[in-house]
Amino acid sequence: MRRTLLLQLILLLTIAVRPAVSEDQLTTAYREDAGRIIGAALTDEEGWQKLTYLTTVIGHRLSGSEQLEQAIAWATQTMQTEGFDDVSNHPVEVPHWVRGEERAQVVAPMRRDLAILGLGRSVGTPAEGIEAPAVVVNSFEDLESLGRDAVEGKIVVYAVPWEGYGKTVRYRGDGASRAAALGAVAVLVRSATGRSIASPHTGALRYSDDAPQIPAAAITVEDAEWMQRIVDLGHELKLDLHMEAKTLPAAESANVVAEIRGSQIPEEVVVMGGHFDSWDVGQGAHDDGAGCIAAWQALRILQRLGLQPKRTLRVVLWTNEENGLAGGTAYREWVGEGIDNHVAAIEMDGGAERPLGFGFGLTGVNPDSGDPIYESALADLEAIGSLLEGLDAGQIFRGGGGADIGPLVKGGVPGLGLRTVGEHYFDWHHTEADTLDKIDPQDFKRAVAMLAVMGYVLADMPGRLVSADSYAPLAAAAP
Amino acid sequence: MRRTLLLQLILLLTIAVRPAVSEDQLTTAYREDAGRIIGAALTDEEGWQKLTYLTTVIGHRLSGSEQLEQAIAWATQTMQTEGFDDVSNHPVEVPHWVRGEERAQVVAPMRRDLAILGLGRSVGTPAEGIEAPAVVVNSFEDLESLGRDAVEGKIVVYAVPWEGYGKTVRYRGDGASRAAALGAVAVLVRSATGRSIASPHTGALRYSDDAPQIPAAAITVEDAEWMQRIVDLGHELKLDLHMEAKTLPAAESANVVAEIRGSQIPEEVVVMGGHFDSWDVGQGAHDDGAGCIAAWQALRILQRLGLQPKRTLRVVLWTNEENGLAGGTAYREWVGEGIDNHVAAIEMDGGAERPLGFGFGLTGVNPDSGDPIYESALADLEAIGSLLEGLDAGQIFRGGGGADIGPLVKGGVPGLGLRTVGEHYFDWHHTEADTLDKIDPQDFKRAVAMLAVMGYVLADMPGRLVSADSYAPLAAAAP
Repeated sequence: MRRTLLLQLILLLTIAVRPAVSEDQLTTAYREDAGRIIGAALTDEEGWQKLTYLTTVIGHRLSGSEQLEQAIAWATQTMQTEGFDDVSNHPVEVPHWVRGEERAQVVAPMRRDLAILGLGRSVGTPAEGIEAPAVVVNSFEDLESLGRDAVEGKIVVYAVPWEGYGKTVRYRGDGASRAAALGAVAVLVRSATGRSIASPHTGALRYSDDAPQIPAAAITVEDAEWMQRIVDLGHELKLDLHMEAKTLPAAESANVVAEIRGSQIPEEVVVMGGHFDSWDVGQGAHDDGAGCIAAWQALRILQRLGLQPKRTLRVVLWTNEENGLAGGTAYREWVGEGIDNHVAAIEMDGGAERPLGFGFGLTGVNPDSGDPIYESALADLEAIGSLLEGLDAGQIFRGGGGADIGPLVKGGVPGLGLRTVGEHYFDWHHTEADTLDKIDPQDFKRAVAMLAVMGYVLADMPGRLVSADSYAPLAAAAP
Repeated sequence: MRRTLLLQLILLLTIAVRPAVSEDQLTTAYREDAGRIIGAALTDEEGWQKLTYLTTVIGHRLSGSEQLEQAIAWATQTMQTEGFDDVSNHPVEVPHWVRGEERAQVVAPMRRDLAILGLGRSVGTPAEGIEAPAVVVNSFEDLESLGRDAVEGKIVVYAVPWEGYGKTVRYRGDGASRAAALGAVAVLVRSATGRSIASPHTGALRYSDDAPQIPAAAITVEDAEWMQRIVDLGHELKLDLHMEAKTLPAAESANVVAEIRGSQIPEEVVVMGGHFDSWDVGQGAHDDGAGCIAAWQALRILQRLGLQPKRTLRVVLWTNEENGLAGGTAYREWVGEGIDNHVAAIEMDGGAERPLGFGFGLTGVNPDSGDPIYESALADLEAIGSLLEGLDAGQIFRGGGGADIGPLVKGGVPGLGLRTVGEHYFDWHHTEADTLDKIDPQDFKRAVAMLAVMGYVLADMPGRLVSADSYAPLAAAAP
C-alpha cells in the first residue's frame, strides 16, 4: 500500500517536472523510437556497402552516361528486393553533354601543358583548336572596363580571388557569356575552390541568349595565379585550347522512388533524398552518392525496425541535378496538386563530412524575421533535433534546402537540408578527388541516423510541421 | 649631483642584474646587428622578386634540363652584378633523366584513365606498353608473403598506408626492386602524402643491383584506395602502362657559389644554401627555390648593411639534390681538407612555411645524450636563436641538417636545418602544386632574416661553434 503511494508520488512528480510545451512532448514521444533508429544506423554496415559499390564499381554518373543508368537500375532492383512499397522509376529526359578529349597549353612566353576540365554544357573548339593571346582579368568589372578592344579575339582568363563558393562560382556560371559579349573566343576560369593541389574543378556554365557560345574550361588555382604573375611581369601570354565537348540529343533517365506508405494518412508525404547523377570525374561520393545512399538506408533502417509512420515517407534519388535539374523539376511536375500533401522535403547534398544538424527554409519567410509560423515549425524541428544531440548533430539552422527539392520548396513545401561542418567539401567538389576515401564511414552512418529520425518523426508526428492552411498565403506571397 | 648618483646606481644595478653567462654576452653583442638585419629582411622586396622570377619565368628545374642551366646562369650573373666576393660556378656532372610521355589506364573490370607521375630514374616501358593483371599489396611483408607465384608477370600496386613521409617513402624508393625480385613487370606506388586532391607525387627510386629494372610510377591516394577496394570486392584488376622515361648521358651542371669573405679569419667558412634543381613538375617553389633564394638574399642583405663577418660566409646553390645529390657530393670533394675550416653548414630544404627555428645535428652525437660539446654548442645556438624570438622563430631543435650538407655533416661539420611548422609541405611536395602561390611572402622574408642572423653570427662570433679539436674524435667515431 505505501509502495503504491510512493510510485504514484513519483509519477506525479515526473509529470509535474516535465515542461508542458509541445516540443518537449514531441521529444518524449519519440525518444524510444529515436534510440532504436540511432542504434541501428550506427551499427549498420549495409549502407556503407551500398555506397562502396556505387562509388567503386559504378563510379561517376553524368546525365546521359551508361553509369548513371546502371546506378538507377541497381538501386531500383535492390530496393525491390528489399521490399519497399511502390518502388518505381519516373522517366525524366535529361541533357546529354559529353566532354570528349580536351587539352590546353601555354604557347608563349614558353610552352607547357595545363591541367583543365571543360565546364559542363560548354561547346567544343574547332577541331584545330583555338590558339589566341590571353587577357587575364580579376573580376567582371575588370573585364568590362577593358572593353571590346582589349578582349576581342582573345582567350579571357578569369584569375579571380576565392571569396567563398557562392561568389566565386559566378565566373564559372556567367564567365563565358560575359566575355563572349565583348568578342572573346574562349574562357579559362579559375576553379571554384579555396584549397588546391593542382586539381581543376568542373561544373556547369549558363550561356545567355544574347552572346555567342564560346568554349569554357576550368584551370587550377595554381595556373590562374601563374598567368596573373606572368602577365604582371610584362610577358605576352598565348594559349592553345582543344575541346571536343558537345551536347548530344537528350537522353532517357529516371528518378528512383521508394517509400514506406503511411499507416493513417498515406496521402501526406515526407520526401527525402539527393541527386543520383554526378560530374564525369571522381566517383560522385560526397556529391551526391552519400546523400542518396544515406536517404535510402534511412528508409531501410525504419523498414527493418518495423517503424511505419502515419504519413508516407518517400525517398527519391533525383536524376540530373548537376547540369539541368531535370529530375527535381520532373518530380515537381509529377506531384502536381499533390504538392499540398507534401509536409516536408529533406535533401542531403552538401557532402558527408561530420554532420551538425539541418537547415530549415520556408519560401516567402525570412528565417530571421520572427515569423510565427516559421518559429513554431522551428521549435518542433528543434525538439526533433534534440533527439540527435547524442550524435552532436541536433542543431537546426535558420535557412536551408537543396537544389533538387527547390521546385517543391518554391511551391510552399517546408525544406530541410542536412548541414555538416563543411571543412573540405569544396576542396573536392566536382574533381577527380570526390572519392569514397574522403568519407568517414562514421560520419556517413550519423547522417543515415539523422535522416531516419527526422524523416520518421516528421511523417509520424500528430500535426503537420506547418499546416497547409497557414502556409498557403506565405507561399503565394513569395517572389 | 643627486641626479648623477641616481644614474650611477641605475647603471650599477643594470650590470648586476645581467647574468654573466656567455650566451647572454653573445645575445647582447649581436642585438644591434640582428635588429638591423631583421628590419632589412622584413622590408625587403628584392628576395621575393627573385623567387617570383625563378618560379614564374624559369619554372621547374630538373637536372639536365635547360631550365636548371638557365637558373644557374641567371643567379650567377645577378650575383656578379650584386658584387659579392668570389661568385663562381663549380662544374658538376649530373644524371639526365627524362620523363617523356606517360599514361596509365585501368583495363578491367572497367576502362578508365589514371593520373600518374613516373618515378625519377625509372626505366620506361616497351613502346607497346605493359598490359598485365595487377596485384595490390599493403606492405613489403604483404608482397613477400604472396611470393613469386602470385607476383610474377604482374603489375604490383603498393596501396600502402600513410605513416609519415619517412616511412611511406620507402615504397617509392625500394618498391620497384623488391617487386622485380619476385618477377613483377612494373609497379605503381601510392603517392607519399597524407592529403590528396587527386595529385600524384613523383620522387626518386633506387634500383638495387640484384633485381631487374622495371618501370615505376606514382599513383594518387584516391586511385590506390580504389584499387584496394575493387580487389577487395572480388574483381580482377588489369592495368596498362606506357612510359617513355629514360636516362640520357650525364649532363654538365654546376653549384653556384657566392660569398662575403671574412675580415679576420677568411679561411674559416660558414656555408649556407639549398638545392637549385627541382622535379620536372610545378615550379620547385617550396622545394627548394625558396631555400636557395632565402640564403642568397640573406647574404645580399648583409652586403647591403655592410656587415662583413670575421669568417667567410658562403652561399651555395647546390645542383642535383633530387635525383643524385651530385652537387652536395661535389662540394664536399671540392673542399677536401678544407672541411676542417667549415665551422657550420646551414640548409633550408623543408619548405618556406612559417619558420620556427633551426634543428642542430652533430655527427656521432645523439642530441639527447647530454654530450658536453653538443650542449655547449646548443647553448650558443639558443643565444643566437633568442635574437630571432621577435619572429617567433628562435627555437633550436635537437637534431637537424639537410641532404646537400649531408656529406659535410658526415665529415664532422656542425649542421643546421631551418625548421618550419611543416603543416602542408608534403601535400605539395614533388607535385604540380609546388608553386609560388603556396608561399606566404612574409614567411619567406622571416626565413631570409633567420638565415642572415644565424649565418652572420656564426661567422662573426669570437670562438668557433664547436672547436675543430674537440670535435675531431666525435666525427672519427661516427658510424
